[in-house]
Amino acid sequence: PGWRSPITEAEFEAHYRRYISYLNNRRLDELDEFLHEELTYNGEPETRADYRARIAGDVAAIPDLYFDVHLIVVSGDQIACRLFYNCTPQSEWLGLQPNGKSISFAEHVFYKFRDGKIYEVWSLLDVPSIAEQLA
Amino acid sequence: PGWRSPITEAEFEAHYRRYISYLNNRRLDELDEFLHEELTYNGEPETRADYRARIAGDVAAIPDLYFDVHLIVVSGDQIACRLFYNCTPQSEWLGLQPNGKSISFAEHVFYKFRDGKIYEVWSLLDVPSIAEQLA
Repeated sequence: PGWRSPITEAEFEAHYRRYISYLNNRRLDELDEFLHEELTYNGEPETRADYRARIAGDVAAIPDLYFDVHLIVVSGDQIACRLFYNCTPQSEWLGLQPNGKSISFAEHVFYKFRDGKIYEVWSLLDVPSIAEQLA
Repeated sequence: PGWRSPITEAEFEAHYRRYISYLNNRRLDELDEFLHEELTYNGEPETRADYRARIAGDVAAIPDLYFDVHLIVVSGDQIACRLFYNCTPQSEWLGLQPNGKSISFAEHVFYKFRDGKIYEVWSLLDVPSIAEQLA
């Protein structure tokens, strides 16, 4: 079934959590129902293919990357999520070399949805913590 | 009047925006209605006095610090906010020296409230951008 609007916040959250499960199950070729063809990421235009390629790049560098929802706030057409990661980078990531150790860090990300699909993302990673752990 | 519970999301948002206005108006000695006496900040215990001192320290280093709500998501007992800053650090901040230039950066912060007062905060600053602009 397609996207019905309006939906409840619980349904909206479930939809988002399904998107996260797709990322965790590496269903990166099946994100059409969650992403508009054209979106912005931290203010920069990005196509759905760019978006997919960015995540594919992260996963290539960190094969055990697992998106864990720590906090989620859902309202209107917006979702804010604190994601938490425990993972082991295997190759260069964010310009940092892996040191063989597992690292833990957070991402705080805001999404705007239209018709059930993301069209705007604002993401911050805890880069100082990542850099310290990979030092 | 005291805090009534439950309140609407619009009232909750207005309450939070009043907290932000208090920060912008430097009413740092009047934050009792917004902060529990004991809270956690990025997982670390903090008293209300610690919280106040931390913000006072930011304001001392950046006298024109202005908290601008760019995005806000309100639901249940949680608020997520993307704050945006345009400001000119005057002394060392985050271990970085000022260079006389204005800088712009975001903060993504999640709050949990109980009885109208914050008891848990998770904040990420865009440190790479700040460091690049102060380089």
